[in-house]
Amino acid sequence: MNHWHLAKGYRYAGIVSGLRSEPNRRDLAVIASETPAIAVGTFTQNRICAAPVQVSRSRVPRPDACAIVICSGNANAATGEQGLKDARRMTDLTAEQLGCSPEQVLVASTGVIGRPLPMPILETGIPKAVAALKPGAEALSDAAHAVLTTDTRIKVATRDCGTFTVTGFAKGAAMIGPNLATMLGFVMTDATLPPPLLKAFLKDACDVSFNCVSVEGHTSTNDTVFLLANGANGRGMLAGDDAHNYFAAVRDVCADLAREIASDAEGAKHLVTLHVEGARTFEDARKMAKAIAESPLVKTAIYGADPNWGRVVSAAGYAGVPFDESHVSLTMGDMKLYDHGRPLPFDAIAASAYLKTNRDVTFTLSFDPAGPGKCTFYTCDLTPEYIALNADYTT
Amino acid sequence: MNHWHLAKGYRYAGIVSGLRSEPNRRDLAVIASETPAIAVGTFTQNRICAAPVQVSRSRVPRPDACAIVICSGNANAATGEQGLKDARRMTDLTAEQLGCSPEQVLVASTGVIGRPLPMPILETGIPKAVAALKPGAEALSDAAHAVLTTDTRIKVATRDCGTFTVTGFAKGAAMIGPNLATMLGFVMTDATLPPPLLKAFLKDACDVSFNCVSVEGHTSTNDTVFLLANGANGRGMLAGDDAHNYFAAVRDVCADLAREIASDAEGAKHLVTLHVEGARTFEDARKMAKAIAESPLVKTAIYGADPNWGRVVSAAGYAGVPFDESHVSLTMGDMKLYDHGRPLPFDAIAASAYLKTNRDVTFTLSFDPAGPGKCTFYTCDLTPEYIALNADYTT
Repeated sequence: MNHWHLAKGYRYAGIVSGLRSEPNRRDLAVIASETPAIAVGTFTQNRICAAPVQVSRSRVPRPDACAIVICSGNANAATGEQGLKDARRMTDLTAEQLGCSPEQVLVASTGVIGRPLPMPILETGIPKAVAALKPGAEALSDAAHAVLTTDTRIKVATRDCGTFTVTGFAKGAAMIGPNLATMLGFVMTDATLPPPLLKAFLKDACDVSFNCVSVEGHTSTNDTVFLLANGANGRGMLAGDDAHNYFAAVRDVCADLAREIASDAEGAKHLVTLHVEGARTFEDARKMAKAIAESPLVKTAIYGADPNWGRVVSAAGYAGVPFDESHVSLTMGDMKLYDHGRPLPFDAIAASAYLKTNRDVTFTLSFDPAGPGKCTFYTCDLTPEYIALNADYTT
Repeated sequence: MNHWHLAKGYRYAGIVSGLRSEPNRRDLAVIASETPAIAVGTFTQNRICAAPVQVSRSRVPRPDACAIVICSGNANAATGEQGLKDARRMTDLTAEQLGCSPEQVLVASTGVIGRPLPMPILETGIPKAVAALKPGAEALSDAAHAVLTTDTRIKVATRDCGTFTVTGFAKGAAMIGPNLATMLGFVMTDATLPPPLLKAFLKDACDVSFNCVSVEGHTSTNDTVFLLANGANGRGMLAGDDAHNYFAAVRDVCADLAREIASDAEGAKHLVTLHVEGARTFEDARKMAKAIAESPLVKTAIYGADPNWGRVVSAAGYAGVPFDESHVSLTMGDMKLYDHGRPLPFDAIAASAYLKTNRDVTFTLSFDPAGPGKCTFYTCDLTPEYIALNADYTT
C-alpha cells in the first residue's frame, strides 16, 4: 500500500463515528483538496434520488470544490425534505471546519433507504473526521474503508502518468445495476483541464466502466461518481497528448474499480467477464451484455458450474437488439459452444471443470457478419450467500 | 377435478414417452379438437427463437387447426436447421395419426436449450399419445402434467359461461419474464368468433396476465400461448354481449393461470401481488411493476420477511418512467410505509410478521395526482431453493 503513487494535494480521513452498529467500523469519510479543485460528477438515473445526490448534483460542475463528505450505513434516500436539510447540514459542518463555503463541499451517502440520518452522530463526527485529514496511502485506505457497506475489501486504483497522477476508490457490493452502476466512486487527479472536457471524460469513462458492471441490475438511489482535478502537479492546463493520456488513465482507473466491484459483489464466487463483439454499436453490445449479466438463470448456472450455455444466448436474445440467430457464436473460456446458430458437441465435464476451477471466467458472444460495436462487461454469479445477505439487511 | 366444466369438443393426452430421465414422468402431450378449430397464437419476442415457435408462428392464425403436440424436457431451441426439421416432423407424426395435414397441427416444447430432440423417442411416442386421446378432466390433467418442467403442480383454469366454456392450462416455473411470460399456455374454447377478434382478444388477455408475471425476468426462447375456438357449443358466431363475456372469460382464465405460475415458481415461498395505481398509462404501471418484480433485492427481502420497502420504491424509480418522488406512496398489505415521498414511522415487527405469516403478500404503489394507468402484476420471492434448482439444471 505504501508504494502507491497517489495524486498530489489531497488529504483523506475515514473514522468510526458510530453511524453503524458494528463496533470499530469506519463509517464517515472526508476527501479534501489542499487547493480548490475543478469538480464534475455523474449521478444515478433513478427517479427516487437520494438527498445527497440532489444536493451534489446542484453543485457540480464547479471550479472551486474543497471537499467531499461521505457516510455509510444510511443512504439518506426517500427521506423527503428532512433528508435534503440533513445532506446540506453535512456540507455545512464540513465547510465550517475547513473554512470554505458549504457550496464548495460535495456529499454522498450509501446504506439503508428510507431512514432519517442520525444527525447528532454526524454533528460530532464530521468535525472529528476533518481533524483527522492526512495525506498518504494510510489515510486513503481509511477513507476507502469508511465508504464500504457489505463490501469485503476496499477498491482502490491509481495510475502515475509521469506529469500527473489519477487515484480512485469506490464502493460496490450490491444494488449494482447500471446506469450508473449502483456505487460510489471518487477519482482524484492532480492535473488541470477545462471543466467541459473533464465532464465529457468522466461520462465516457463511466460508460465503459461503472455502466458496464452489474450485480443484480437494481439501480440505486445513491449512485455517484466524482472526478476532482486540483492542478497540484503544477503543470498548468493539460493539452494534446497529455490530455489524451489523462483520459486513458481516468478510464483505466474507473475500469479497475468496476472490475473490483463485480469481483467483490455480495456473495460472489465468480468474477464473470462478458465480451460482446461484432454488434452494430457499443450500445447494442452493452444491452446484450447487460441482459446476460442480469439473468439469474445465467448467474445460478455459473455458480453451480453448469455449462448451460443456452441461457447465455437466450438472454442476449431478449435484450431488445435485433439480430439473426445464424450470425451468433458463443465461446466460454476457449471452448466454442455455439457456432453461427448451431450447437457444437462439447465435453460437458471439461466445461463444468472450467467453471468449477476458475474464479475468473469469460464468455464471448460474437456476431458474423461483424459490426464495429463491442463491449466488455463485468458481473458475478448468484449464490446462496447473496440471498442470505439480503434476506435480512434491515431487520 | 371431476367437477370441472370443460370446453366441449376437445380430447387430451399426456403420456410417458421416455424424453425425461425420471421414471414415469409424463413428458408428451397432445390436444385435439374434434372438429377443425380457429387457432391464434402469441409467441416469445426473444431473438433466439425455438424451432417449434418458428413452425407454429408460420401456421397461425388458421381456421382449421386439428391438434397441438407438446413435449417437455427439451426446448428444441438454438438447434439450427435440424431443430426446424424435428419440430415439423413432430407435426407430421401427429397429423398422420389424426388424418389431417401437418399444417393443421401446432407444436410447442419446453426444457433444456441447445440439445437436439431425441427423435426416435418421439417417433414411437407421438402415435402412442394420439392413441391415448380422451375427453374429460382426467385426460386434461394428464396433458397438463406432461407439459410441466420444474413446476410442482398443474395449472388449470376453466370458466363455464352458459353458452360457451373457456378452459386453459399452462406451465411456468422459471425462465419467466414477460414478453411473454416464459411459459406455455393453451386455451381451449367451444365458441366461434372471427379470427381477427380472437387474435385481438388473446393479445389483450396476455397483456394483462402472462405479460404481468415475472419470476426472474429471463424471457424464454419458447414462450407460446394458443387459443383455440372450435364452435362445439353449437351456437354459431358469438357477438354482442356474448363476445364481450367471452373476452372477459379468456382474460380471467389467463389471469388465473398467470397467478398460478407466479405462485408455483421455482423455489417460491411467497406469491407477491403488486398493484400499481395512478400511473399515466397501463404500460407505465406495468414497467414499474416489472422492475419491482424482477429486483433480486426486493425478492430476497420478501423471502427474509425484511420490510425493506426502500428497495420497492427505488426499483420503481429505475423503470424508465418519469415521476416526481413527492407523488409516490407505498402500502404493504394494509400498512402505509411511504406517503407522498416521505417515510412513515411503522411497526417493523408487525411489518416483518406480515411477510413471515402470509404466503400471499401485496404491495400497492400509488401516485397522487393520479393518472388512469394501473396494473396488477404477479411475482414471487427469490430463495435458496431457486438457486439450488438452477445451479445444476443440465449437469
